[in-house]
Amino acid sequence: MRFCPFAQRVHLVLDAKQIPYHSIYINLTDKPEWLLDKNPQGKVPALELVREPGPPVLTESLLICEYLDEQYPLRPLYPRDPLKKVQEKLLIERFGPVLGAFFRASDGGDLEPFWAGLDTYEKELSRRGTDFFGGEQTGILDYMIWPWCERLELLKLQRGEEYNYDEARFPQLTLWVERMKRDQAVMAFYMEAEVQAEFLRTRAAGHPNYNLLVKEA
Amino acid sequence: MRFCPFAQRVHLVLDAKQIPYHSIYINLTDKPEWLLDKNPQGKVPALELVREPGPPVLTESLLICEYLDEQYPLRPLYPRDPLKKVQEKLLIERFGPVLGAFFRASDGGDLEPFWAGLDTYEKELSRRGTDFFGGEQTGILDYMIWPWCERLELLKLQRGEEYNYDEARFPQLTLWVERMKRDQAVMAFYMEAEVQAEFLRTRAAGHPNYNLLVKEA
Repeated sequence: MRFCPFAQRVHLVLDAKQIPYHSIYINLTDKPEWLLDKNPQGKVPALELVREPGPPVLTESLLICEYLDEQYPLRPLYPRDPLKKVQEKLLIERFGPVLGAFFRASDGGDLEPFWAGLDTYEKELSRRGTDFFGGEQTGILDYMIWPWCERLELLKLQRGEEYNYDEARFPQLTLWVERMKRDQAVMAFYMEAEVQAEFLRTRAAGHPNYNLLVKEA
Repeated sequence: MRFCPFAQRVHLVLDAKQIPYHSIYINLTDKPEWLLDKNPQGKVPALELVREPGPPVLTESLLICEYLDEQYPLRPLYPRDPLKKVQEKLLIERFGPVLGAFFRASDGGDLEPFWAGLDTYEKELSRRGTDFFGGEQTGILDYMIWPWCERLELLKLQRGEEYNYDEARFPQLTLWVERMKRDQAVMAFYMEAEVQAEFLRTRAAGHPNYNLLVKEA
């Protein structure tokens, strides 16, 4: 689903590692029948490994990304060291409540829980002292939290004057967002806030327009 | 916490891989102050890696077990092949709702959702045709789902005549439970259903007895 931040995680990893793939965007409100054959849970993202016998279908964005990083050696995204790797996974895990806070803020809820969640990542990036969480290059943590950081501008558009992002509170993250926007994989799937906002408006109105980006022939 | 099935997962992996460790059981209702220094989220299980600089503290049972399997080569529990590995992780992930159904059944709720959840694992074990999910030896999936399967007898004790486990529905799992009870790591942390039930009775009565297994000097 083109507007799904969880599916975006998988696109980011596929693009960063230059793995060839074919996208099929679906209507999540009126799911195609074949989806349940591929993935009985009917969720996105789902990745069909067309060259493997079966073929098997993988689900769960984080697990798909881990698999891709293990299976495709180009541009490793996870640290190799088991301790550094599990610490990265814990930071990804801790982003779960943060993205939950994002969705509530995007729906008109309190903004502060989302900012409080981002504090951890501001502090961590500052502690690392690198351009990206992955070091001089993007790594798995950069990509796994990016979809909700890309949507900061969406939040600004949605909340208008209530939007109180504080650059003084997030000096490192502010620079990081600008750096990320110049990353090849991020650029390949980037969506303007206006388009995201328009999709969410059609969804709130009860008729989500999944074809918003489809150009007329 | 000695009665915590998530902490039990970590004990099972530590014991299966013969990793030396020191257990500190805590009172989860009245948490020791030092716990928040070690683990700001105040959750169990938490594993302090005393030989690493810091020392770092890991949380989240599944992530701790993955780390241990990567860091300690004896008796690998995860498959090496990335595809088999992610498929095992998906089956562990899918157990999340099943253990949720267990807790509700243990609290007096409907039993059928738990049985329906186990159907997946009965079918999978039958498909594999092996003694354990891991093959001829126990693997990660065996240990990650075991704590709630060990508690089948607890459920029987709690639900009395309402308990309707059906051996004809779960022929493979029934045999597997008996095999698991003879596994060294399982035996090392096994708890009789009567003791588990007694703990839960004290907890339901508002004064959980975390020291139930402590023998008087």
